[in-house]
Amino acid sequence: MPESVRIVEVGPRDGLQNEKIAVPVAARIELINRLAAAGLRSIEVGSFVSPKRIPQMLGTDEVVRQLPVDGEVRYPVLVPNQQGMAAALDAGAREVAIFASASETFSAKNINCSIAESIERFGPVVDMAKANGVAVRGYVSCVLGCPYEGAVATGAVVSLSRRLADLGCYEVSLGDTIGIGTPRQARQVIHAVAQEIGAGAVALHFHDTRGQALANILACLEEGVTVIDSAVAGLGGCPYAPGASGNVSTEDLLFMLHGMGVTTGVDLGALVEAGRFISAALGRATGSKVAQAMIAGGASVPAM
Amino acid sequence: MPESVRIVEVGPRDGLQNEKIAVPVAARIELINRLAAAGLRSIEVGSFVSPKRIPQMLGTDEVVRQLPVDGEVRYPVLVPNQQGMAAALDAGAREVAIFASASETFSAKNINCSIAESIERFGPVVDMAKANGVAVRGYVSCVLGCPYEGAVATGAVVSLSRRLADLGCYEVSLGDTIGIGTPRQARQVIHAVAQEIGAGAVALHFHDTRGQALANILACLEEGVTVIDSAVAGLGGCPYAPGASGNVSTEDLLFMLHGMGVTTGVDLGALVEAGRFISAALGRATGSKVAQAMIAGGASVPAM
Repeated sequence: MPESVRIVEVGPRDGLQNEKIAVPVAARIELINRLAAAGLRSIEVGSFVSPKRIPQMLGTDEVVRQLPVDGEVRYPVLVPNQQGMAAALDAGAREVAIFASASETFSAKNINCSIAESIERFGPVVDMAKANGVAVRGYVSCVLGCPYEGAVATGAVVSLSRRLADLGCYEVSLGDTIGIGTPRQARQVIHAVAQEIGAGAVALHFHDTRGQALANILACLEEGVTVIDSAVAGLGGCPYAPGASGNVSTEDLLFMLHGMGVTTGVDLGALVEAGRFISAALGRATGSKVAQAMIAGGASVPAM
Repeated sequence: MPESVRIVEVGPRDGLQNEKIAVPVAARIELINRLAAAGLRSIEVGSFVSPKRIPQMLGTDEVVRQLPVDGEVRYPVLVPNQQGMAAALDAGAREVAIFASASETFSAKNINCSIAESIERFGPVVDMAKANGVAVRGYVSCVLGCPYEGAVATGAVVSLSRRLADLGCYEVSLGDTIGIGTPRQARQVIHAVAQEIGAGAVALHFHDTRGQALANILACLEEGVTVIDSAVAGLGGCPYAPGASGNVSTEDLLFMLHGMGVTTGVDLGALVEAGRFISAALGRATGSKVAQAMIAGGASVPAM
């Protein structure tokens, strides 16, 4: 079990892009600032994709422009291609994330190209980042299963992770995009990737579609992973199961980690307040059970 | 990790007694029969408590009378005292459960007596059960924390478990009544009790108030525990945090166990249907994320 974990808060990007309501730029900036104030040091703030395709991410350039550039907090943005990368650079982004899939069918349906083509496409994107001293994070989706293919071969996850690391990604975030994995399988896949690129270069990105995310994270922590993606208020959802849960909730993750003596540097109370803010903006109940319990009165229960 | 797990379905008792709406007897029997048809072999069906105090359990005698007595399925009922035990025997119950707390304050507020007094009170109850060949299951509440006292000493959990085992309980179910525990702590407490009375006599009874239940169960499975209490649709709630989640959902638990190759003998599809039935009767959304995902369309995702 690691002594400390770095949480990558993906609520403002992966969370909000899967919510029905598009949150205005001002509220997204307010959310991001609250998350930073709570102690989060990596916050994914948006995506330079077509607003026609994902209207929830409209104005990501404005979001990036208005963030503080004191260097204390990393604010990665997702870029799908060179055009997105140029826009991210223009807005002043200092970190970007690129996105590939371990499933050929998912790659074809999600980004209209084969896995190999997606890696080729990212070559010049990463070159642009390097030329500008911008850090690059890599995502691999469907690592524990694909909505089209079902099972995904561990070898496909390992080789894609290797290619992203070779391209220059300082970290590869392994996504259980549809929240289909269970602990033994999750640990096996993460073990295999960690063997290939090192546990220090692996992040976990688990969705809670079937309530398995925390258990899967617990299993994978024993593999030496110390970076975990999560979303405040459990923002987001699953395009393949409308109405289902989104990313694992940052609040619930914190509660587990802190309860086990694993430090994160994040203040749970402040985080719950940030979650209340964005849940109100979306007009939905929080997806965090910890927040729900605290709001309902469980706050009076002494932390243990 | 065990090869198989016996699930004790507590939805019709611990779940429904914490729901706002009192479900009529006929619907409770329908639920129980659906749960049995799904393959569950231990189903807690009610409580012989004062209907003034817990109106949701009114008619438990009728429920017990109408259940099949083929011996394939255990249908325990909760009995707080000799009067309840007499009523349970009269209705034909073949298994009962008794309930004590590891926290003095909780014991005082919940059952109006000290822990020692509660054990004394259960002596004649267990005698009545023995004289009638009725099996007795024991509950220990607040094993990972108390809403009044906060931390609960592991020694208190161990000694109370010992006393319940000595009284004649064939199994002691350890309850995280307010869902406050985290995996390391849960494993430590369960380890201590298993050392004292044997892992084979221990059951886990975790509430998901803070989303930790599955992770806690995963950690405790490594201690050799093979019996887990859960509630279909995540029925129930937490009296100390109104609106919070209830018992760990049987569907989500099954998904994790089956995904790890641990057998339960329970059919997930049939269980999800039973959960839909009772959720509709309560006019609420299911508390199971697996059920939510399957209902939303995730059923088309191949099981892996």
